[in-house]
Amino acid sequence: MDILKIGVLTCSDRAAANVYEDISGNEIIRFFKEVLQNPWEPVYRVIPDEKEEIVSALKSMEEENCALIVTTGGTGPAHRDVTPEATEELCQKMLPGFGELMRQVSLQYVPTSILSRQTAGIYNQTLIINLPGKPSAIRQCLDAVFPAIPYCLDLIGGPHMVCHESTVKAFRPKEMS
Amino acid sequence: MDILKIGVLTCSDRAAANVYEDISGNEIIRFFKEVLQNPWEPVYRVIPDEKEEIVSALKSMEEENCALIVTTGGTGPAHRDVTPEATEELCQKMLPGFGELMRQVSLQYVPTSILSRQTAGIYNQTLIINLPGKPSAIRQCLDAVFPAIPYCLDLIGGPHMVCHESTVKAFRPKEMS
Amino acid sequence: MDILKIGVLTCSDRAAANVYEDISGNEIIRFFKEVLQNPWEPVYRVIPDEKEEIVSALKSMEEENCALIVTTGGTGPAHRDVTPEATEELCQKMLPGFGELMRQVSLQYVPTSILSRQTAGIYNQTLIINLPGKPSAIRQCLDAVFPAIPYCLDLIGGPHMVCHESTVKAFRPKEMS
Repeated sequence: MDILKIGVLTCSDRAAANVYEDISGNEIIRFFKEVLQNPWEPVYRVIPDEKEEIVSALKSMEEENCALIVTTGGTGPAHRDVTPEATEELCQKMLPGFGELMRQVSLQYVPTSILSRQTAGIYNQTLIINLPGKPSAIRQCLDAVFPAIPYCLDLIGGPHMVCHESTVKAFRPKEMS
Repeated sequence: MDILKIGVLTCSDRAAANVYEDISGNEIIRFFKEVLQNPWEPVYRVIPDEKEEIVSALKSMEEENCALIVTTGGTGPAHRDVTPEATEELCQKMLPGFGELMRQVSLQYVPTSILSRQTAGIYNQTLIINLPGKPSAIRQCLDAVFPAIPYCLDLIGGPHMVCHESTVKAFRPKEMS
Repeated sequence: MDILKIGVLTCSDRAAANVYEDISGNEIIRFFKEVLQNPWEPVYRVIPDEKEEIVSALKSMEEENCALIVTTGGTGPAHRDVTPEATEELCQKMLPGFGELMRQVSLQYVPTSILSRQTAGIYNQTLIINLPGKPSAIRQCLDAVFPAIPYCLDLIGGPHMVCHESTVKAFRPKEMS
């Protein structure tokens, strides 16, 4: 198998200025280490909440052949939060089901999950998913949406993702649409 | 009662090329046969996943006075899937609640339901609903959203739909907004 | 504490023409009387379902320093329903989680809740929320989304909202994103 590349993009003014450690980005990397059987490597960057910088980072990760890019941070209602805007600017197709499910899952923990604008979309042959910024929500959201990711990559012409069945079950329907 | 017309539009490269039978379109027609008391007829077409062809088909079904148009297929994340794009291009109003509920219902069966971009909208006095392409999901989705359809047609100036109460209950709130 | 201002905007041709009483607008005011500890006052208007009038009313409420504006009415699929359109025209950011949760809650009562296009968004430093028009749904929807409102105002630079904990619990996460 070729090396699978996964972009991990932390969008946070404070993490980019080293005001605090990027716990969320590391949590994402830990998740994929745990679930993926494929040989893989992260393409990891931490940038401030600037829309044009986020767009550039997403573009360059796609050019480096990341099959999947996971962002964290910048999905709230504050003026500086612009990660979904950057994602929508690039993507040819938006997948609203990701945001709906992540908000629904987070709602079991915090009523403020409805403030999150996290979403997902397809940019060329890359799936981009916005996760929230809070470290504690990363695992909850990835557990919820991950089972749909391998089949999504199949459908958009991405690489074949194989998981450790003991940790998370990828789902590939047999019936074709 | 006048004849009620319902558009059934199958969007599928393979069904249009006769590579396989259009099971989903037939499943939609069977559903309405079962639930409707009104005298009705389907306006049925099978076309490939081409956005301009889908837009034209939706337009011509509206011109033929279809009060409701139900599509199947073309709602996934693949490059050729463009049914929601065609629907959004035409509709004056989108109704996101249909897609939310259909994804939520399908999620009980398959975790990949979050990949579906199915939606609904109002085009002039016609309600357009995108169903998924998979035959097994047709009935699940129609059972979930159908109870709201007759009242929706009332609100947009469409014909009065009457159902066999034994199969599905149309809901019309008494209190007006 | 400064006086907290909350806009209450009823969008309804019939209420504006005094064909019937604005029960929904009064229900919203009653809710805030019950839950808020802050000294506050409503900025209350009843206008017809005209998009430009709704946009103007929202703008002038923001100029009068309303930290929050709650609308009622005009969220359905009918031709005259244009409240979400006016809201989207003004807001810099939309918060889809509000509409998703309100539709989900209303779905426990009426299957026609999927016809509602209610949403929420941020306009400068003001949070705008569309509630449905039906009086019975006002309380259900406010109970569901209110716990997220005080923290949202914190995030967008609005005033600090304090609630009577016995009626509704505002939620402010400790962990920052």
